[in-house]
Formats: sequence, C-alpha cells, structure tokens
Amino acid sequence: MKFLCQMQVTFPESMSPEEVAQKQAEEKEYSQALQRSGEFEAIYRVVGKYANVSIFEVESNQRLHEILSGFPMFPYMSIETTALATHPNAI
Amino acid sequence: MKFLCQMQVTFPESMSPEEVAQKQAEEKEYSQALQRSGEFEAIYRVVGKYANVSIFEVESNQRLHEILSGFPMFPYMSIETTALATHPNAI
Amino acid sequence: MKFLCQMQVTFPESMSPEEVAQKQAEEKEYSQALQRSGEFEAIYRVVGKYANVSIFEVESNQRLHEILSGFPMFPYMSIETTALATHPNAI
Amino acid sequence: MKFLCQMQVTFPESMSPEEVAQKQAEEKEYSQALQRSGEFEAIYRVVGKYANVSIFEVESNQRLHEILSGFPMFPYMSIETTALATHPNAI
Amino acid sequence: MKFLCQMQVTFPESMSPEEVAQKQAEEKEYSQALQRSGEFEAIYRVVGKYANVSIFEVESNQRLHEILSGFPMFPYMSIETTALATHPNAI
Amino acid sequence: MKFLCQMQVTFPESMSPEEVAQKQAEEKEYSQALQRSGEFEAIYRVVGKYANVSIFEVESNQRLHEILSGFPMFPYMSIETTALATHPNAI
Amino acid sequence: MKFLCQMQVTFPESMSPEEVAQKQAEEKEYSQALQRSGEFEAIYRVVGKYANVSIFEVESNQRLHEILSGFPMFPYMSIETTALATHPNAI
Amino acid sequence: MKFLCQMQVTFPESMSPEEVAQKQAEEKEYSQALQRSGEFEAIYRVVGKYANVSIFEVESNQRLHEILSGFPMFPYMSIETTALATHPNAI
Amino acid sequence: MKFLCQMQVTFPESMSPEEVAQKQAEEKEYSQALQRSGEFEAIYRVVGKYANVSIFEVESNQRLHEILSGFPMFPYMSIETTALATHPNAI
Amino acid sequence: MKFLCQMQVTFPESMSPEEVAQKQAEEKEYSQALQRSGEFEAIYRVVGKYANVSIFEVESNQRLHEILSGFPMFPYMSIETTALATHPNAI
Repeated sequence: MKFLCQMQVTFPESMSPEEVAQKQAEEKEYSQALQRSGEFEAIYRVVGKYANVSIFEVESNQRLHEILSGFPMFPYMSIETTALATHPNAI
Repeated sequence: MKFLCQMQVTFPESMSPEEVAQKQAEEKEYSQALQRSGEFEAIYRVVGKYANVSIFEVESNQRLHEILSGFPMFPYMSIETTALATHPNAI
Repeated sequence: MKFLCQMQVTFPESMSPEEVAQKQAEEKEYSQALQRSGEFEAIYRVVGKYANVSIFEVESNQRLHEILSGFPMFPYMSIETTALATHPNAI
Repeated sequence: MKFLCQMQVTFPESMSPEEVAQKQAEEKEYSQALQRSGEFEAIYRVVGKYANVSIFEVESNQRLHEILSGFPMFPYMSIETTALATHPNAI
Repeated sequence: MKFLCQMQVTFPESMSPEEVAQKQAEEKEYSQALQRSGEFEAIYRVVGKYANVSIFEVESNQRLHEILSGFPMFPYMSIETTALATHPNAI
Repeated sequence: MKFLCQMQVTFPESMSPEEVAQKQAEEKEYSQALQRSGEFEAIYRVVGKYANVSIFEVESNQRLHEILSGFPMFPYMSIETTALATHPNAI
Repeated sequence: MKFLCQMQVTFPESMSPEEVAQKQAEEKEYSQALQRSGEFEAIYRVVGKYANVSIFEVESNQRLHEILSGFPMFPYMSIETTALATHPNAI
Repeated sequence: MKFLCQMQVTFPESMSPEEVAQKQAEEKEYSQALQRSGEFEAIYRVVGKYANVSIFEVESNQRLHEILSGFPMFPYMSIETTALATHPNAI
Repeated sequence: MKFLCQMQVTFPESMSPEEVAQKQAEEKEYSQALQRSGEFEAIYRVVGKYANVSIFEVESNQRLHEILSGFPMFPYMSIETTALATHPNAI
Repeated sequence: MKFLCQMQVTFPESMSPEEVAQKQAEEKEYSQALQRSGEFEAIYRVVGKYANVSIFEVESNQRLHEILSGFPMFPYMSIETTALATHPNAI
C-alpha cells in the first residue's frame, strides 16, 4: 500500500550547527535502514528546497505514522501525506 | 484502518432535477449498504453545505478508492482524504 | 449535537522537554475523562503530523468551547471546528 | 446558541431574470418569517458583493442546517458557518 | 454604519502570564466602556479559538480605526474588517 | 470617508460582443458621472488585467454599496473593498 | 533526471461518455508506451480523486513538456511539476 | 524597464478548434513582431501547462498594458505582472 | 507612471519601544519629504491594521524600488506592488 | 535547459548586521561567478521586496540544485522553481 509524502524541513534558529549535524546523521541512518527494509521505496530532493518527495510501501496507516513520527528530524518537518492506489494505466 | 473523507457535492447546471434525484437515490442505497457492511463507519452533514464528513474503516488504500470511486455521485464530488492512525490518548 | 474538530499542536521553541511532557500528561488525563463522559466521542491521529481529528457530542456551542479552551494544551493548538448535522443517508 | 453565517450568492448564467426575481421574492418571505420568529437575529449586506453576514440564534446544529438548507436560494449560495460562544468581555 | 470585525489574538512567547493578565484586564475595561457607549454592538467568542466576532456601529471609518487601534491588545491582534450595509430582506 | 475598491471583470461566455459593448458604454457614463460628483476620486487600470483599482470618497457604507451595486457591470464584477482612514504620516 | 507530476483531470460537461471513453483509451495506450520506454517510471491513482501522482525520468525539461503536452487528455488536465534531484540519504 | 509576466491560457469550451487555431496564429504573429522590436525580450513555455513566463522591456506601465491587452489571446489569458529593478549582484 | 503599494508593518518582538518610536519618526520624515516632492501621491491607513494603501507617481520601476527600499521601516514591511495604467473611463 | 527561480530572502532576527553584510558579500561573489560561467543567465530585483527573479541555464535538475543549495544565503531563502521549455512563438 503506497503513500506519497512531501516533507519540508525547518530547523529552529536556536539549534547549533552541531545539533543540526547530529540530527542529520541520525536521520540518514534511520532513513537508510527503512529503505533497505523495503518500506521506504524512494526519496528525492526537491530542487531549491530543504524538502523531499518520498514514496512509502507499508501495510497500514498505523505503520506509516510509526515510521514518520520515528524520524529523528520529525519535530522539524512538515509532512503532507497522500494515499495512493493502483492506476488503471500502470503496466 | 481509518480515513477521514470530506466530500463536497456540485451538480452541473445541465442536470435535470430528475437526474439529480435518481443519482441521490442510487447514492443512498450504495452508501447504506457500505454502512451496514461496517466499512463506512459514520457520515455527517456539514451545516450549511451540500457536503459531508465521513469516517471509513477499510483494509487498504486500494479498497478505499474502490469505495469512493464507486459512489454514484463520485463524478460530482470533490473529496479530501486524510489517513488516520490510533491516537495515544484514545481510550 | 456533533462537531468535527481538527487540531494541530505547535509547542514553542522555548518549552523544555519536561514542560512538554508535563503538558502532554495533563492533556491525556483531561482528554480521557472527557471520552469516558461521552462528550468526546472519538480522537484519531493524523498520519505524519502532530495533529488530530476529533468528534464531539455536546449540548451547545458554549459547552464545546468550555471543553476546547480547557485543554491543558489549548494555548499550543490551532483548532478548526465544523458544525455537523444528521446526514439523510446515515443508517 | 449563536452562529455567524457568511453567505455568497451566485446565480447560474442559465437562469432568466424572472426566475431570479422569483427566487429572491421567495427568499425574502422565508428570511423575514425566520427573523420574526427570533431565530434569525440579524442580516447585513456586505458592501460591494452579492453576499451577506448573518447571525442566527438556534437550539442546535440540526436546526441551523434545516434553516439554511430551506432557503429558496440555498442551491445558489456558498455558506461559511462559525460556531459562537459567549465572550467574557460581553456586557 | 456597521462593520463586522473578526479578531484573532496571538500573544508573543516572551510575555509573562502577569503581562498577559494585565493586558486582558485593560482590554475588558476598554471593551465594556465601548459596549456601554453603543458603538460596540456585539462581541462573540469563536468556538475553539482565541478569537472573536464583533459588530460595530460607528459614524465613520476614522472612528472605527480609532476604536480598534486603541484596544490595549491591538498590537497582538490580527483584525479583518468587513463594511456592512442594510440588507433588503432585513425587517 | 475613503475606500479602496479592487474590481475584476469577468463577462460570461454567453454574452455577445454587442451586449458587452453596450454594458461598457453604460458603465463609462455611470462611472464618469460619479467621478464628476466627487464621490469617485480615482480609477486606474491594473496592468495586464481586466481589472481596476479605485478610490471612493463617500459619506457612508450604505452610499458606497448603492454606488457599487448600481454599476451597470456590477453582476460581472468581483469587488474587494478596504475601509481607509487618515494616515498619521499624510501631509 | 526525475520529475514529480501531480495531474488532476476535469472533463468538460459537454463531452459525451463516448468521447470520454475514447480519450481514456488513447491515454492508456500513450501512457503505457511511455512506461515501457522507461521515461514514465511510475503512475499512481490518488485515493478519492480523478488524479494521479507520476514520476518521470527524462533527459530534459523540453522532453518532459513534449511528453506531457502529447497526452491525449492534456487539454483536460491541470499538471503541477516538481523538479527532483538525488537525495543525500538515498541508498 | 523590465517586467516579469506569467500568463495562463484557458480557452472557453465553446470555441471551435478552428477559432482556437486562428487565435493562436494571430498571437504568434503579434508576439514575434514585439520580440523583433525589442520590447518582448524573452518567452518560455512552462513545462506541463498552457502557460508562459515572459520578460518585457518597456518604457512605461502604460506601454506594457497596451502590449498585453493587445494580445489576440488576451481575453483568454490570466496574467500576473511583477515589476522588476536592477539587482545589485547583476553583472 | 503610477503604482499601488499595499504595505503591512510587523516589528520584531526584540525591538524596544524606543527603537520602534525612532524608526517611526524617521519614517514620517522620509515619507513626508517624498509626498512633498510629488512622487508619493497618497497614503491611507487600512482600518484595523498596522498597514497602509499608497499611490506612487514615479518615472520607473527602478525609482520606485529606490523609494521603497529606502524607507527606514523597509526591513519590517511586507509590500505588494501593483502596476497601474490609465483607465479608459477616467475623466 | 532553463528554469525560472523566484527567491525571497528572510534573515533571522538574531543575525547581526555584520553577519548579514558578510553573507551578502559572499553571495555577490558566488552569484557573479555563476553569471560569468553562463549558467546564471539573468537576475532581477523584485520591486518593493528583498526578493529576486532569476533565470538559469543548466544541464540538469541535479546541477540546478547544486547551484541553489550552494548559495551562501541558501538557508535564508525560500525558492520556487519553474521548469521551462522552448515556447513555439519564440523567435
């Protein structure tokens, strides 16, 4: 079951560059583990923004929320989620 | 797995009152069968609008799209879908 | 008399994790008491957001505002309220 | 229990001036009966628009929807409804 | 001459609870004096928000701006103003 | 008492060029009479749009609505009205 | 080089069901040929809408516009295009 | 003096393909004459839309409006205009 | 060559009342010099807001940007600019 | 391959004028090097805003994101990117 997630990152002004770098490193590790598991199918950078376009393959809404709210950078992200179904023209 | 759907109906000017009434009767039958099956948990009228707020309990995104696109009035509805998960404060 | 409330939480940067946890504990207790009383019919988490979708059953607008403004996290929430009526297709 | 309703009227191009005048006459009669009953407290024209700002005093959401959906011009109106409560500064 | 004003209050994070309470007390006194004078016809709380819906009866735009900008909480309010006229259906 | 009005014109597809020209001629006459009377202080074309920016000097909201709703092209215009007051920096 | 395209379909009221079916059949053929060529990587249906989320892999903006404007249903689609780059966390 | 214009074309449903083609041919001729004159510096197609991004170099607002309102397709275009100045980093 | 500018002022929370008053005094002096020069034709206060509606008469976009960016309060203002032309109904 | 980028700059309140000036100097150098290379075709100031309209000529989305995210002021900019293609009327 697939979802499109469009995520925009905004770190608060009060975070130090070290805290930001720490969060980004944790995020990378968490993100790559999910990609290897098959639940996080694709992630792209949006040109000109600190934002991404992601495709998830999960068994339920519940599991998707667990994944998203578990992101180390979740508190700094605004996420728009679109539920997807099979398209009749897809081969 | 639950979803909130917010639906707004707009019939085209060219439809006759008879065609509208026919569509509404078909919609009622379809809607009530889904409510009896347990997949369509709740439907409320939005005060002052030809619109509703609905809660669905379905097994997948795919099934939700089948249900929604099967509505006899689907061509005349604009639907916003929000994927829901369990809230930690729910009893 | 039912209402849909869509609530989005945003804690200010200056709140410590302890203050946040304290507010969340108070919120849980308050929310669950209302759910047990029957006035707070349902609460769902919005996937990917610190937000919820809630259904209230109250006797008046006045009572709904008392409930909402009494939430311990009320100062940190943006709430959109939609008045609901019976839908003619509801069984 | 009070509500603010903001209504915008848009008649379809296909309606004749006679049909419009007929609807307006029916609307006036319906509106004035409600004003006399005490449920429709106030109605103002919005400057520069075919729109109004109205205050209703009703016993329930259900009753408000009955009133609004009963307007002869309801099919041609877009209505935004705001639930109101007592303000602590009101005398 | 009537106006609808929709006011949303947002206190800055840096204000202490004492400063907020002081501003609210001043606001109440100012608001009630205007209500007694007849220029501030009605004020309602918007359900679920730190916001109000107000109706003013003033002799000019100039006077309305004097009233609004004189609110002790004016610096913390976002105000949308709608000029109103007599509605042909009003009784 | 001054107001800014921003007007956008949209003629329906079904109007013939002759009907449009007739409405425009009536509009011109009506508009120029108001300009000569002193109530319609200024009118500018918005570059690239069938729209204008206008300044009115009227004695009341009521009078402004009479003027605007009297425009021969009023049914084809969307008008946004902003109430203005004296600016403290104006000379 | 990848792009996210979000397409919403709206057929005009005047099209007959036969014309719609003909356009849909042409669209399917065109779409599947592009998917087989590798330029049209993925297409998903948006739940509850006559809309899709698509990922393209093309050599240039020019080629993407050729593809999109060549869709048999292009005149009936509103398309939002987002340019994508490699995400540093992608594996 | 430069301006950015972002134009979106929408032909009404009632125009025949021949009328559309005729308007497009007239538009092309008009547009290319302006490009040759130096007043219409650049025009680009927006990917996935019947829209363009254009840069004009004109002596006044008045001249820009003459150019834009003279487009054969002007009645079918929505145009957003942004006034531009020299950027301090431009070489 | 005329422009409509709609300016909204927002001072940051960190500015002291003295700094604000200093900026406002500088702004007044700057604004009045421009009004006397003839380039700043009119300035009105928007009722209920720390905002203004202004009309400028300048020789170029470049000059307008010099004027606007030279405002002592420019860093605290959000400005929307609309290029204006002569209206065919203006007398 | 061309892109329109519309960039809006917002420096955080906590940055000192020296830090801002340093960033601006770095930005100028970076920007001018790109303009000389031919990849940054044009940059204009938006009248009345700390914003710009820019045209890029790059070989890929990837390259455009490298350029934009490399701007010294990138963390303080909101950038909207529009992919462009050849317009059939361009000479």
